[in-house]
Amino acid sequence: MGLRVLIVGGVAAGASAATRARRLDYDAEIIIFERSGHVSFANCGLPYYVGDVIQEREALLLQSPERFRDRFAVDVRLRHEVESIDRVGRRILVRNLDTGETVWEPYDRLILTPGASPIIPPFDGVDCQNVFFLRTMEDTDAFRACVDAGTVRRAVVVGAGFIGLETAEALTRRGVQVSVVELLDQVLAPLDEDMARRVAEHLRENGVSLYLGSAVSNFKAEQGIVTEVIMEDGRTLPADAVLLSIGVRPNTRLAREAGLTVGSSGGIQVDQHLRTTDPNIFAAGDAAEVVHAVTGRRVTVPLAGPANKHGRLAGEIAVAGKGASAAKVAATAIVQVFDLTVAVTGLSRKEAERAGIAAQHALVSRRHHVGYYPGAEEMLLKLVYEPGTRRVLGAQAIGGAGVDRRIDVIATAIHFGGTLDDLSNLDLAYAPQFGAAKDPVHIAAFVADNQERGLFRQVEPAAVGDLIDQGYQLVDVRHAEEFAEESIPGAVNIDVDELRARVGELDPDRPVLVLCEVGQRGYYAARILQGLGRRDVVNLSGGYVWYAVQCPDEDTQRSG
Amino acid sequence: MGLRVLIVGGVAAGASAATRARRLDYDAEIIIFERSGHVSFANCGLPYYVGDVIQEREALLLQSPERFRDRFAVDVRLRHEVESIDRVGRRILVRNLDTGETVWEPYDRLILTPGASPIIPPFDGVDCQNVFFLRTMEDTDAFRACVDAGTVRRAVVVGAGFIGLETAEALTRRGVQVSVVELLDQVLAPLDEDMARRVAEHLRENGVSLYLGSAVSNFKAEQGIVTEVIMEDGRTLPADAVLLSIGVRPNTRLAREAGLTVGSSGGIQVDQHLRTTDPNIFAAGDAAEVVHAVTGRRVTVPLAGPANKHGRLAGEIAVAGKGASAAKVAATAIVQVFDLTVAVTGLSRKEAERAGIAAQHALVSRRHHVGYYPGAEEMLLKLVYEPGTRRVLGAQAIGGAGVDRRIDVIATAIHFGGTLDDLSNLDLAYAPQFGAAKDPVHIAAFVADNQERGLFRQVEPAAVGDLIDQGYQLVDVRHAEEFAEESIPGAVNIDVDELRARVGELDPDRPVLVLCEVGQRGYYAARILQGLGRRDVVNLSGGYVWYAVQCPDEDTQRSG
Repeated sequence: MGLRVLIVGGVAAGASAATRARRLDYDAEIIIFERSGHVSFANCGLPYYVGDVIQEREALLLQSPERFRDRFAVDVRLRHEVESIDRVGRRILVRNLDTGETVWEPYDRLILTPGASPIIPPFDGVDCQNVFFLRTMEDTDAFRACVDAGTVRRAVVVGAGFIGLETAEALTRRGVQVSVVELLDQVLAPLDEDMARRVAEHLRENGVSLYLGSAVSNFKAEQGIVTEVIMEDGRTLPADAVLLSIGVRPNTRLAREAGLTVGSSGGIQVDQHLRTTDPNIFAAGDAAEVVHAVTGRRVTVPLAGPANKHGRLAGEIAVAGKGASAAKVAATAIVQVFDLTVAVTGLSRKEAERAGIAAQHALVSRRHHVGYYPGAEEMLLKLVYEPGTRRVLGAQAIGGAGVDRRIDVIATAIHFGGTLDDLSNLDLAYAPQFGAAKDPVHIAAFVADNQERGLFRQVEPAAVGDLIDQGYQLVDVRHAEEFAEESIPGAVNIDVDELRARVGELDPDRPVLVLCEVGQRGYYAARILQGLGRRDVVNLSGGYVWYAVQCPDEDTQRSG
Repeated sequence: MGLRVLIVGGVAAGASAATRARRLDYDAEIIIFERSGHVSFANCGLPYYVGDVIQEREALLLQSPERFRDRFAVDVRLRHEVESIDRVGRRILVRNLDTGETVWEPYDRLILTPGASPIIPPFDGVDCQNVFFLRTMEDTDAFRACVDAGTVRRAVVVGAGFIGLETAEALTRRGVQVSVVELLDQVLAPLDEDMARRVAEHLRENGVSLYLGSAVSNFKAEQGIVTEVIMEDGRTLPADAVLLSIGVRPNTRLAREAGLTVGSSGGIQVDQHLRTTDPNIFAAGDAAEVVHAVTGRRVTVPLAGPANKHGRLAGEIAVAGKGASAAKVAATAIVQVFDLTVAVTGLSRKEAERAGIAAQHALVSRRHHVGYYPGAEEMLLKLVYEPGTRRVLGAQAIGGAGVDRRIDVIATAIHFGGTLDDLSNLDLAYAPQFGAAKDPVHIAAFVADNQERGLFRQVEPAAVGDLIDQGYQLVDVRHAEEFAEESIPGAVNIDVDELRARVGELDPDRPVLVLCEVGQRGYYAARILQGLGRRDVVNLSGGYVWYAVQCPDEDTQRSG
């Protein structure tokens, strides 16, 4: 008889574990217990089904129990909940949710892939039929039915993370007026606040109302329906439907009650071979800890990529007894927000600082391919690195085409512990419709390198007010036409191409802040002024474009 | 007085050298001598201007001499040819091509960025007005004028490299009937022949006539016009215009005559700081050698990416005296061929074998993002690695969206000397519209790893005939509907999902070749059969899809 391998939870990690175990062990008996009514469904696609981008429900059902049985000889038991683990007896207590019956199932190896559950705040009416979470097919079916029925005119999304924003977009596309309420002062917590501001602006441009730094205090529910979301400042938002997407919590009850160690991150502790503190029990996916590629710390990263890869490895080691070390995780993630693609890998500056790692960054605004070929799209790329060691810590990108590619390149460099010099030297694919001989990744590394070597100093838009107060003179080095359109109040215009000739117009006694459109000509200007002996020159990082995002005028700030 | 820095050649490397030198040295006197009438033009964009994808000629002129002067204080002298170098006297002899005058110009530092020139075969009429090279603006202007005039009905492209195929597409889009003649048995020499076959098929699908393995013996010219291209087998191709794109040769005459070492690769030898054998003379770009990232050998790689980055570094070291080490080059390249994107990095199998490096590969056919999200495009990815060490040697990809991204990820891994395990473990960006939790890069690494560990054996389509002769039974494990549409003659159909039940239908005494659509279900089937004790099972790499490309029926082979 072969090994008996039981798997708790059959979505990403569990399904990967089962099929990999089968391929490596023909004789094992492999059973998946899945609490919901579906196995291996496309949970990342759920907002798109609500938004009718994915039109066929069947497309979301990646595998059926029949397919698991026929192709992989894996026994999938849906609507079966595992209630407890008897580690001494090597058995688990399983409840059939339809019949209520329970039975002890013995195991040789147990793989815990129970995922994470949405955090449910203690509001009135959180179990109402128009409050959704988008974590299960059942919930998604109900949400879509409700939108299809045309009864949702106004919806409130609580939580501006990935699923929250994807759902805000989906509902907007279906004609629903959407408000997003977020406790933090920004959308998308993995981004630094400056980058998040660009995303928030774009959400507003697309008609989404944003309430940042706003806590929900309660719901108002009538006759089994939530009708209003009440914020702590007393304001209320009428709602025909609510998405609760304030985060997830690893499902660790089973593990904890069985005496397995749960780490301070809140996830089940595993070693590099995904073994829990019991050598016959493995864990992977949203419920388990992973090692962060940059900090080396144990964290939980509820994302599909690590879940699938770690699930596969857990399945392998469970039957083979050995295998590779589990991949460290850079927490690389990507999300579409209307016309913007937003992606991140490694640490933001804020996260680096929180982790006690000194961080500096370079922000570049580039096109995704050379401007002379039609169709170039703008991209903001923020590269975060450790001064001194020059180690790459992370990156954030916002734009259209090519954002995925640059973040993946930097994620790959982070995997190898790469530095700014590595990024500068990468030999990347170039043709006019695909990039530039000096790619945005190179340019970001060049800027960071120039900063590190003291070739120039940059300041963030938020600092401009202070510099003006300190007596800095603002020199806009763009062309006169660009300057005429808009600039920072108080700036004088000297085209960088005239700067050598007109340098006498500058006040020799006041320090200089140079600015241009995106920061590049400002750098040239700073080098010219430094070449002429001035040591009191700083460049505005990201130029006027970035300033306009960070310091919008009051009218802009008020919108939405 | 500052350093006097003279630069020979003002396109990619030369322009980068000049501007970087200026930013690091305000006081240097920097002069570029450029033989043609244009500086820093978009040479990679020339075929697209002929094809009218780029419509404005001005878009190609990235910088003007005026801009160089005003912004960078760099003196650009167009139509000035450098005739010789007097190393002892540290001066160069420069001829003004308009006046014929020559003058000796002294230098402190000399940067050689003369590029490469097209190889011109000794055919009658190669200097006719309807024979083009697409290396200069002047030549491009003439080519475009000729196409615009409507006098080009049929064109012959000699050489099926990047520029040849880009031009074949450009001309096709403009209504010209294009024939491509190539000496090799394949298009795009950096690809392995199997991958190139897919590109050739696509060219034919788009109406391009291909003559592979065909040498041109001469042109027929009448009254200053080439009218026919004559092949060695006696066939002739009528032509209203000819593009000669059979390769380029580094411009090393100046260097050689000055006694600088030119390597066996044909490029000017430089050290890691881009110094030639004379410490005051630097070289970069198409004329200089680079170190290959995989082989460590000195080679020439006439591509824009290395030229721009090395030019920048040469400019820096020339004025600062020190700087980083020059990047090794993986020869990463990308080209659009009608609806296909084709990209390559590192070594092909053929190149690895030529370099004496043992190589194995994994071929995967995947969608660029999950199938359940609309718009997924097919991608072929061939990953080449060294057995034993598991080191990644190179990759080739053909498809649509996302080809650039995967090749860049693998190029980055190659930069770090990465292995299959590194690729398996990369934490890449995933959302349904951007990829899959198990990305094509992961899957390729998984397949290679499975092969390396002996979990299954694959055979190439070309071997199928031999295996049939050896008595192999062919088992197509796709669904009956797929099998009914088309399969390899002689195959029997047993759906992988029925294989466990129907294994008795197989002849126990004959070895088994399993095949499916792209190779994945064949792998599952092979594992099932191996689990049942069979040791004589091989899987068809790439499945029926790949077989159809590699072994088209005779009708297909004859087309074009």
